[in-house]
Amino acid sequence: MSPIIFHPFEKEIEPDGDLDLLRLARKAGIPLEAPCGGKRICGKCRVIVESSDGPLPPPSEREAEVLGGLIKKGYRLACETVLTRGASVVVPEESRTGRQVILTSDTRHPYPVRLRPHVSPCFVEVPEPSIDAVLADRERFLMALEKAYGIRSPEIDLFLLRQLPQALRSGPKGVTAAIYDGEEIIGLWPGREERLYGVAFDVGTTTVVAFLMDMATGEKLAVTHAMNPQIAMGDDVVTRISFCGEDPGGLEKLRREIVSCLNNLIAEATDQAGIDPRRIMEATVVGNTAMHHFLAGLDPGYLALAPYPPVLQEGQTCKARDLGLRIGASAYVHLLPIKAGFVGSDTVACILATGLHKRKTPALLIDLGTNGEIVFGNRDRMLCCSTAAGPAFEGGHIRWGMRASPGAIERIRIDPDTLDVLWETIDREKPLGLCGSGIISAAAEMIRSGIILSRGNMNDALRTPRLREGEDGWEFVLAWGSETATGQDIVLTQKDVAELQMAKSAVYAGASVLIEQYGDVPFSQILLAGACGNYVDPRDACAIDLFPGCLTAKVVGVGNAAGHGACLALLDRNKSKEAERIARKAEYVELAAAGRFQELFVSSMWFTKAWDFEDDF
Amino acid sequence: MSPIIFHPFEKEIEPDGDLDLLRLARKAGIPLEAPCGGKRICGKCRVIVESSDGPLPPPSEREAEVLGGLIKKGYRLACETVLTRGASVVVPEESRTGRQVILTSDTRHPYPVRLRPHVSPCFVEVPEPSIDAVLADRERFLMALEKAYGIRSPEIDLFLLRQLPQALRSGPKGVTAAIYDGEEIIGLWPGREERLYGVAFDVGTTTVVAFLMDMATGEKLAVTHAMNPQIAMGDDVVTRISFCGEDPGGLEKLRREIVSCLNNLIAEATDQAGIDPRRIMEATVVGNTAMHHFLAGLDPGYLALAPYPPVLQEGQTCKARDLGLRIGASAYVHLLPIKAGFVGSDTVACILATGLHKRKTPALLIDLGTNGEIVFGNRDRMLCCSTAAGPAFEGGHIRWGMRASPGAIERIRIDPDTLDVLWETIDREKPLGLCGSGIISAAAEMIRSGIILSRGNMNDALRTPRLREGEDGWEFVLAWGSETATGQDIVLTQKDVAELQMAKSAVYAGASVLIEQYGDVPFSQILLAGACGNYVDPRDACAIDLFPGCLTAKVVGVGNAAGHGACLALLDRNKSKEAERIARKAEYVELAAAGRFQELFVSSMWFTKAWDFEDDF
Repeated sequence: MSPIIFHPFEKEIEPDGDLDLLRLARKAGIPLEAPCGGKRICGKCRVIVESSDGPLPPPSEREAEVLGGLIKKGYRLACETVLTRGASVVVPEESRTGRQVILTSDTRHPYPVRLRPHVSPCFVEVPEPSIDAVLADRERFLMALEKAYGIRSPEIDLFLLRQLPQALRSGPKGVTAAIYDGEEIIGLWPGREERLYGVAFDVGTTTVVAFLMDMATGEKLAVTHAMNPQIAMGDDVVTRISFCGEDPGGLEKLRREIVSCLNNLIAEATDQAGIDPRRIMEATVVGNTAMHHFLAGLDPGYLALAPYPPVLQEGQTCKARDLGLRIGASAYVHLLPIKAGFVGSDTVACILATGLHKRKTPALLIDLGTNGEIVFGNRDRMLCCSTAAGPAFEGGHIRWGMRASPGAIERIRIDPDTLDVLWETIDREKPLGLCGSGIISAAAEMIRSGIILSRGNMNDALRTPRLREGEDGWEFVLAWGSETATGQDIVLTQKDVAELQMAKSAVYAGASVLIEQYGDVPFSQILLAGACGNYVDPRDACAIDLFPGCLTAKVVGVGNAAGHGACLALLDRNKSKEAERIARKAEYVELAAAGRFQELFVSSMWFTKAWDFEDDF
Repeated sequence: MSPIIFHPFEKEIEPDGDLDLLRLARKAGIPLEAPCGGKRICGKCRVIVESSDGPLPPPSEREAEVLGGLIKKGYRLACETVLTRGASVVVPEESRTGRQVILTSDTRHPYPVRLRPHVSPCFVEVPEPSIDAVLADRERFLMALEKAYGIRSPEIDLFLLRQLPQALRSGPKGVTAAIYDGEEIIGLWPGREERLYGVAFDVGTTTVVAFLMDMATGEKLAVTHAMNPQIAMGDDVVTRISFCGEDPGGLEKLRREIVSCLNNLIAEATDQAGIDPRRIMEATVVGNTAMHHFLAGLDPGYLALAPYPPVLQEGQTCKARDLGLRIGASAYVHLLPIKAGFVGSDTVACILATGLHKRKTPALLIDLGTNGEIVFGNRDRMLCCSTAAGPAFEGGHIRWGMRASPGAIERIRIDPDTLDVLWETIDREKPLGLCGSGIISAAAEMIRSGIILSRGNMNDALRTPRLREGEDGWEFVLAWGSETATGQDIVLTQKDVAELQMAKSAVYAGASVLIEQYGDVPFSQILLAGACGNYVDPRDACAIDLFPGCLTAKVVGVGNAAGHGACLALLDRNKSKEAERIARKAEYVELAAAGRFQELFVSSMWFTKAWDFEDDF
């Protein structure tokens, strides 16, 4: 019996009882699209039966309905078609899937991703030069590549050309080329080597994260992070921009700091994974606009001057060597597109990762970083803004604030009767301080137990040794020195609460402006992004009035959505294009121009869920 | 009366008696192609008459024949069409010329060139960002550019983006962009600035020349030259290749030396012309294959091992910064294509400049450098080879040899009766030494006057104080110390003559092999390229049997044809493509593999025009 051949994969498989073409294709490992999983719902598994050894079964009613006139051209739904004899079946481009994998991650939300990287490995054997017709190394190599893969005249840059003579002559017969979009060769290794690597960066004002990815499997091989070393030149974006304005070499200093930080993260990650960093063939970077400009060496001065124009908005691709990254010298780095002076590629990547731009029902997306970027909308329209929330959510400007690392208190429980405190720390280590979620949790519990009052002041009527006067006014002891890693009491001060109030009311007011401008539609989800956002207990967030809509919408932590968006764009080149569309489509709302924001900012300062002792004032 | 309008130039001109459209176009300054000069031969001056205020004259017989079916589409030959009323005439792309200019040069042969550079300047006024819809600098700039020139989404690299914010905000309204092939912006200046510059390099084993060109006029603004500093690592190609093999950092040393030499030549040339080197927007480089590899940092090791494959053959384009050239950071440098391990882009450029590849009658082209590259052929077929002529023609290995600079003796006359010597020096300065043409001239005159005998030995039977025994055997005094700049006698030694014999018989034998392989056809021209070649007196060259065919063919000095080819490719992008075709078409003849070469090399060592005193032996 002759087999069924799937083109253009040229895979053969024998007909198998009443298995339909979709199931046969699965068995043969053919990447045939079927989002419904073969449940005969989606109508996406279209194939073309070119020829068949016997008569074809007539199209089903559903096929007739879904395919219409295409049936005349040989189109069938694979899930509806059972062939019992040999046939020649074409899987058209639109029905082919990239391979789907799940991004493993430190978040609770898995991100499905198709593996469609720009770069793919191609192994070729290159003949030696012959005296009769001496062809250069490059020309023999390209000829072999065209013969084996049909790739015509790809470019090779000077840096890679320098490796070519050696690669062609090192021991094993043949060489593996990393081909970028079928148009350029950007990597070369002697012998057969299928694995390529990529790295995605999330460059935050405070923390920087690198994700080392296996581009062949989508596996996350290592995640490394570091404080942004630019902190030495200013805690926040505005201070660093001023630094550039004051010091003629300021921008170059900031650029070198972050490049060296990224290179350290690469070295650490590749070390963990045991791979050569020069084997990294692609990188993506997301970050807020200022971080983006610092890294690219672009003058950030105008970001601080109304109307705050960035130097560029669209994505920018450059050679790794031009950016100073120590990965493959000829590899490309994609700086993802940014929206505005204060809505960067990190926000675009958050939208990409959460799929907000494809949703039917509007959702509120909040990235709780040093700047609180907020997006509200759905597939029809998206509004975005940035609020200067300050570093409180990342532990900054908080007496015992720290980043979310082992020993950070991430959750607090206060017994409302005894005011005794229970805490949970990351990795169950002895408390070192409070990370963002710990700060919010502490404030929420202190509100619930009446320690913090509606205006944010502490209830000094309470009699407990935990409430005491300190350097910054009243403070509440969350952990006694006898319990902590440092031997010192960990407290939340009146000043800390004031910082938190500024931060939360900025976010609240910003989100409210967007929702109002959109038209006050109901929404069912609040997506909390950012390393902090992911670990915030939704009830705690609601207790401190972090955002509007708490009563009606479900709060979902989406982890480091920006970082995940960067990973998605790395593994799937279509996602890069999607990011461009998101950046163009989102509408930026300038809060400074919205009088309504000031109004809401002031009125959102209070804690509405706290006890109100009006007589205190 | 309404005028005749030429589109797309939107130039108007009144009909003028019986002047045909070609002549009217000339009058109006329209770049309409007519290689025959309007003699009604070439059929290239095709235009489309879109509309006319009166009836058109019927097409001539010749038009009907040349244009055929195109006549229905409105096509006419401008030289055949006389319009007496207003009309609208389109000059289609294929009929437009680039502007033709003559390359000014230090050679006797002017090279006509069309100005069709890759790069063109575009001035735009860019609106300021508005608070309503904040567009980034890059996006506003590109939008203005598209509006003004229809250029869509050109790329801008990171290095140029860094200049953008400042360029948009520096004083004068508007900015000039240098656009490369309509696809990328590679330069930016505040204000309106029409002039762009380019530089062409001829990198020889011994001398390096830079030509600074005005890309708007084709004018040569400055020519600077220097010794190739790699000479410190070896006089000839093979020694330098060995140097790379012996020293792990050898290649990098050679690369740095030549890059720094090119940068010095750029600095000197731009200094002379009073322009900013960063305004140079394009560069071309020609050189022999080893020089090409050294500059590009490509391993030259295999050039010295049979079958001598280069790393690449086709032209390579890279950013100036990647090569290390201090011109516009985003500018492109074109390394012209090479043919083989010992026939480099200098030879390709010689063919390009002399038009050998377009000639009907075969010609012999000889580039008299350290390596004597030889080409024989015509538009049908070209054969090329390289002979290790040695540095004699550039003054190397010759006791009083020097490069062709002021004070070099370039011509000698010897009175056959008195054996008195007359010499001419460059710039009529006191003699310092002998340049290539001086060496050949001295040898030729010594042959004519019987001082050098047929086997190369000196005629010690002559009684003259000028002929004496020295360190290297017999020597002949060309200039007495009392006449020279150094106070020392300038002589030609027996050893110098032996060097010259090796060099000339290598060239003679190489050329003979090519002519034989081509099929011994008659040829009418011998083109002598190379700084030396240009100044060699053809009679002198024939007197020493420098090449075959002296009796039948005219010897023409074509100057630094390689350098001129590099200039042509710089000014006319079509010439770059032509160079690629030349490199592909030329057939390389490996002399080492041709037993006939050895035979001819030995038999060509003698001087056939010299007296033969057989009894001397």
